[in-house]
Order: sequence, then structure tokens, then C-alpha cells
Amino acid sequence: PTAALAGLTYISYRAFCPKGRPAPSGRVNHRIMKDNPKVVDTIDVEDISEKAAFCRCWRTKNWPYCDGSHGAHNRETGDNVGPLVVNAK
Amino acid sequence: PTAALAGLTYISYRAFCPKGRPAPSGRVNHRIMKDNPKVVDTIDVEDISEKAAFCRCWRTKNWPYCDGSHGAHNRETGDNVGPLVVNAK
Ligand code: FES
Ligand code: FES
Repeated sequence: PTAALAGLTYISYRAFCPKGRPAPSGRVNHRIMKDNPKVVDTIDVEDISEKAAFCRCWRTKNWPYCDGSHGAHNRETGDNVGPLVVNAK
Repeated sequence: PTAALAGLTYISYRAFCPKGRPAPSGRVNHRIMKDNPKVVDTIDVEDISEKAAFCRCWRTKNWPYCDGSHGAHNRETGDNVGPLVVNAK
């Protein structure tokens, strides 16, 4: 009966403990400037030589530019995100 | 005993059913052009009159432009995302 009680306790924990399986946070950005309450970047057109690709997946290692990391993100999660390309020529 | 068994069955279901609480998908975009395998937008600088803000939260109703929806997203999820502003003046 002690074992059964322990088992029951564990199963109830798994069922109802809020941390058992964390609910989806819905956050888009997990890493970039998390101390900044709102990450806004401003780009002057004069600073774009010909064209530039800007990250919209929040996974790049070269923020705010796209470094292709959206590819792995899309593969891993089934997502379909990609950059904004600004054409300055 | 039937009620106890039913209760136990329900608790076990809650505990182990994989759909009981879906695992986080990690996706960034839940709505925009989901039939397109990679959403890339290209903007010509000539088409920006003075400045334009581009959505990076994937919640706007005016894709690819920011419509302020990042505010509700940030409040609801604790995220910190915001637009890319392109200055063309
Ligand atoms: S790396 Fe983020 S959109 Fe390409
Ligand atoms: S609405 Fe998406 S960044 Fe503003």
C-alpha cells in the first residue's frame, strides 16, 4: 500500500504540477537583448551599401542581420520564417 | 471503486497523454503565409517615403509592416520584441 500510494502521488504530480511539462511560453525571442524591454532597431538607408537582410526569426548570431539561422529553426520546429531584405541600390 | 478507478484513469491520462498539454512548438510564426515554406520579403528603398517599421513579431495584421501588435504579444508572453525601422529620409 505504501508503494501504491507513492505511485499515485507521483502520477498526480505528473498530472497537475505546473512545471511537469512547461506550458508553451509563446515567446519569439529567447536570447537577444533580454534586458531591453522592447528591441527596436533603426537602420539608415545610407548605411546599406547595396542590400541587407534583417533577421525576423530572432535566432541569428549577428543581430540585427540575418545569418541564415532561420534555416535550422525552420527545420527543427516546422516553422516558415525568413528575413526582410532591404534593397538600397 | 468504479468512481475511484475512473478518477485514477483520468489522472493517468492527464499525466501521460502527450496531447494533455502540448509541448512548446518553438515556432515564431503561427499565422502568416503558412503555405509559403520561407517568408522572405524584399523592400526597395525607393518605396519607403520617409521611414517604415517592419514587423519582427509575426503578429501584425498588416504584414510586412508593424502595426503595434508586438505590444500585446510582449504583455501576454513576457517577450521583448519590436520592429525594424528603416529610415529613408
Ligand atoms: S537568421 Fe533570422 S531570419 Fe535569417
Ligand atoms: S507588430 Fe510585429 S513588430 Fe510590431
